[in-house]
Amino acid sequence: MYWEREFETLERNKLRSLQLERLKRTVKQAIQSPFYKELYQRKGISADRLRHVEAIRELPFTTKQDLREHFPYGFLSLPKRDIIRLHSSSGTTGNPTVIFHNRHDISSWANLMARSLYCAGVRDTDVFQNICGYGLFTGGLGFQYGIERLGCLSIPAGAGNSLRQIKLMQDYGTTAIHAIPSYLGRLYEVFQAEGLDPRKDTDLRLFVIGAEPHTEEQRQRIEDMFGVKAYNSFGLSEMNGPGVAFECTEQAGLHIWEDAFLIEIIDPETLEPVPDGEFGELVMTTLDREAMPLIRYRTRDITRIIPGVCACGRTHARLDRITGRSDDMFIVKGCNVFPMQIEGVLLKVPEVGSDYLITLERINGVDEMIVEVEVKKDWFNGDIARLDRLSKFITHQIRDEVLTKPIVRLVEPGSIPKSAGKAVRVLDKRVFDSVKL
Amino acid sequence: MYWEREFETLERNKLRSLQLERLKRTVKQAIQSPFYKELYQRKGISADRLRHVEAIRELPFTTKQDLREHFPYGFLSLPKRDIIRLHSSSGTTGNPTVIFHNRHDISSWANLMARSLYCAGVRDTDVFQNICGYGLFTGGLGFQYGIERLGCLSIPAGAGNSLRQIKLMQDYGTTAIHAIPSYLGRLYEVFQAEGLDPRKDTDLRLFVIGAEPHTEEQRQRIEDMFGVKAYNSFGLSEMNGPGVAFECTEQAGLHIWEDAFLIEIIDPETLEPVPDGEFGELVMTTLDREAMPLIRYRTRDITRIIPGVCACGRTHARLDRITGRSDDMFIVKGCNVFPMQIEGVLLKVPEVGSDYLITLERINGVDEMIVEVEVKKDWFNGDIARLDRLSKFITHQIRDEVLTKPIVRLVEPGSIPKSAGKAVRVLDKRVFDSVKL
Ligand SMILES: [Zn+2]
Ligand SMILES: [Zn+2]
Repeated sequence: MYWEREFETLERNKLRSLQLERLKRTVKQAIQSPFYKELYQRKGISADRLRHVEAIRELPFTTKQDLREHFPYGFLSLPKRDIIRLHSSSGTTGNPTVIFHNRHDISSWANLMARSLYCAGVRDTDVFQNICGYGLFTGGLGFQYGIERLGCLSIPAGAGNSLRQIKLMQDYGTTAIHAIPSYLGRLYEVFQAEGLDPRKDTDLRLFVIGAEPHTEEQRQRIEDMFGVKAYNSFGLSEMNGPGVAFECTEQAGLHIWEDAFLIEIIDPETLEPVPDGEFGELVMTTLDREAMPLIRYRTRDITRIIPGVCACGRTHARLDRITGRSDDMFIVKGCNVFPMQIEGVLLKVPEVGSDYLITLERINGVDEMIVEVEVKKDWFNGDIARLDRLSKFITHQIRDEVLTKPIVRLVEPGSIPKSAGKAVRVLDKRVFDSVKL
Repeated sequence: MYWEREFETLERNKLRSLQLERLKRTVKQAIQSPFYKELYQRKGISADRLRHVEAIRELPFTTKQDLREHFPYGFLSLPKRDIIRLHSSSGTTGNPTVIFHNRHDISSWANLMARSLYCAGVRDTDVFQNICGYGLFTGGLGFQYGIERLGCLSIPAGAGNSLRQIKLMQDYGTTAIHAIPSYLGRLYEVFQAEGLDPRKDTDLRLFVIGAEPHTEEQRQRIEDMFGVKAYNSFGLSEMNGPGVAFECTEQAGLHIWEDAFLIEIIDPETLEPVPDGEFGELVMTTLDREAMPLIRYRTRDITRIIPGVCACGRTHARLDRITGRSDDMFIVKGCNVFPMQIEGVLLKVPEVGSDYLITLERINGVDEMIVEVEVKKDWFNGDIARLDRLSKFITHQIRDEVLTKPIVRLVEPGSIPKSAGKAVRVLDKRVFDSVKL
C-alpha cells in the first residue's frame, strides 16, 4: 500500500514534531548561504527561536525576485564542490532561476518521486514511458530517477515523435506513462490515424499528468480515450520539480509530502494565513534539502488544502488543483512563460512595433500560444516572403527563449486593441476549473 | 591519479584471472536468456569448459542481426521485473536494437563512466556541461550518471541552442564539456559572432569528444580554438553506450576497461584473431552485465590494440581510433545511420523513384548528410511549391527515422549515376585517419 509507511501514515502530531525538527535544521543550514545569512542576521533570526512550527510566520518570505537578484550562488548553503547537479530555467533574458543539489538532495528527490508514483499505484512490474523533455527541464531526470528508484522498467522516451512513442509502447508493453495532458489528445489522434485503439492495442493502464493546467473533464476524457486511470502530479522547479504533491488512487486531491515541505496558504494581498480550507497562495519551505534550502518561498500558485482525511490512510495534507497564479506567469505545453520573456525577445527585433498580444487557445485539442506582433508600417508592402522570414525568425527566437514554439502572427500597426489602463498582454481562452478569490 | 587504483592498475596476469572468473559468471548468466540457452545447449557449451580466457574463441559470435531477430526479449537473462531501464535505437523501420539494464548494470555503468572521466582528468571540482541529447540516446543519461557519481557539478544542458549553451558556460563557470566534435566548430562560430573568445571569456579547460569519427587534426583545432585539452571517448549502445574506452591524460590511445569488457580483434573475413597490434574488427564480451550479457559481439568497428604500456600506469589495453566499419553503417552528428533505414523511408513515399544517393560532406565545419532522391518524371512540371512540400516531407520522415536532419535534394530520374555492379549508396567525402586493411 505504501512506499514508506512510517512517513506516509505518521500521526499528525508526530508529523508536526518531525517538521519542527527539520525546520530548525533547515534554518541552520540556510544561514550558511549569503542571502539568508545577511537577512537573518539583520533581523536577528536564529533556529533556536522556533519553538513550534507556526513560529515560521515570523520569518520573512522568499520570492522569485530574491532568487534572481542573488543569482547564481546567493542561496547556496554548501561549498560548490559538494554540488552534483543544477537545474535552471530557460531563457537568455535576465537572470534565470537556478536550483542546486548535492548527493543527498538528488537521492531525497528520487525517493519522493518513487513515493509519489507508488502512491498513484505504479509498481515495479510496470513499464513506465517518460514522454517528457530531459536536460535542464526537471520532468525528465526527475521522473527518470524516481522510476528507477521504484524499480519499474523505465523507457526514457523524451518528448515528441508520436509514431515512435506508439512503437515504443507496443514494442515493450508500456503500462504507465508520464506526459503533459495537452499532448495526450494529439497522441490519441495519431493512434486513430494509424487505425489503432489504445484500449485494445496497448497495455496502458495508468497515466501521470501534470506540469500544465487542465480540468477534471480533460482528465476524464483522457481516461476514456485510453482506458486508463490518470493521476495528477504537482511540482515546481524551485521545489526540485516533480514529486512535490501527487494524487493517490482515491483521486481526491494531491498529497503534498509534509515531511519534505512545510506548507502555508496565504492571502497574496495581506500575506496573512487564510482560514483552513480556503483558497490562497501556496507558500513552501523545504525541510530536507541541504544544498539550497528555501524558506517561505512564495510559489504564486493559487490552491487550497482540502479539509478532512483521505481514505487511503496517508496523513499528509491534500492540495486542491492549482486554480490560478498571483502573478502573470502562465503555463503552456509544460513550459513556464512570463510575458516579460516574450517582450524581451520582441524588443530586440527592430522591425517590431510597440504592441503585442499573447493569446492562449486550445486548437485541435492542443494548447497553443499565439503571439500577435505589430510590425512597422512599411513592412506591409506586399513582400510576403520578407514577412514570412521575419515571422519565422521571431518564432525561432521566442522558442529559444521559452522552449515552446509559438504561433506568430504579424499584424499592421494599430490592429491590437489598446486598453484604457494597463495593457492586456495575455488572453487565456482555455477553460480551467476556476475559483473566485 | 586513479578512480579505482586496484582495478585500473591490476597486473596483467591478475587481470586475466579476473576476466576468466567474470567470463564464467557471464556465460552462466547468459544461459538464462532464450537466445544463448538454445544456442549453447545445441552446441554443448557450458561455463565449466572455459579453462582460460582464450577458450572464448570456441564460442560463437553474436551479431546485430541476432539482436534484431530475437527482439525484444531473446537476450534478456533476468525476469522482466528486475529491469529498471532500456535504451533502444531509433527508427520505425524494422526491429530496433534494445539493451536492458538492472540496478547493478546501471550502477556499474555509472562507475565506469566516472572512472573514464577521472582518467581524462575530470575532478569533482569541475563544472561539467553535458551538451548531448538525453532520452533513449545513451550519451545523455550515460554521462549524467557518471558525472554525478564522480561528484562534478553537472549541467544537463541537452543538445542545441548555442547561445544558451554559452550563457550556461558563463553563468556557472563551466570547466568541462562533453559534445560531438562537429558541433564544437559551430559553437566556436557562435562565440565569435557574439564577440567572445572562449579562451578568455570562459573557464573551459577540458572537453570530452566522441560518438562521431574525427581526425587528430580536428582534435587539435578544437584544442586551439577553445584553449582546452580534448579527450577522445569511445562507446557503443550495445556495450551500454559511453564509458567503454577513454583516453587518459597521455592522449595516447583509449584505455578499454578490461575488467568490464573482454576484447578480441579479428579479421572480419576469416574471423580469426589478427596478430598483436594489427587492425581488425573489435569483438566484445560484457564481463559485468547481468540483465543482458553479450558474448563475442561483433561491433563492426575497425581498430587495433596499441602495443606497449601506457605511461599513466593503467594496465588496461589501449584502443586506437576507429578507422572504419566492416559494414555499411555510418555516423553523422553522433547518430548511427544504416543506408537501409533511409531506403525504408523512401520506399514508403510513392512519388519517389528507385534511385538515391547519400553523400556525407563537411559544410561550414559541420558534417552534413545529403540525400539525393530521384522523383517521378511528372513532378518536374514547374510546380516548385509541390516539390518543396515533398522535399520537406521526406526530410521530416528521415529525421524521425535516424534522429538527424538530412539535406534532401530532389532530382530528375536518371540523374544519379548508375554503377556497373552493386549500387553505390553512400559517398563519404569527409576525411578521417584511414588505414588500409
Ligand atoms: Zn490519499
Ligand atoms: Zn594511460
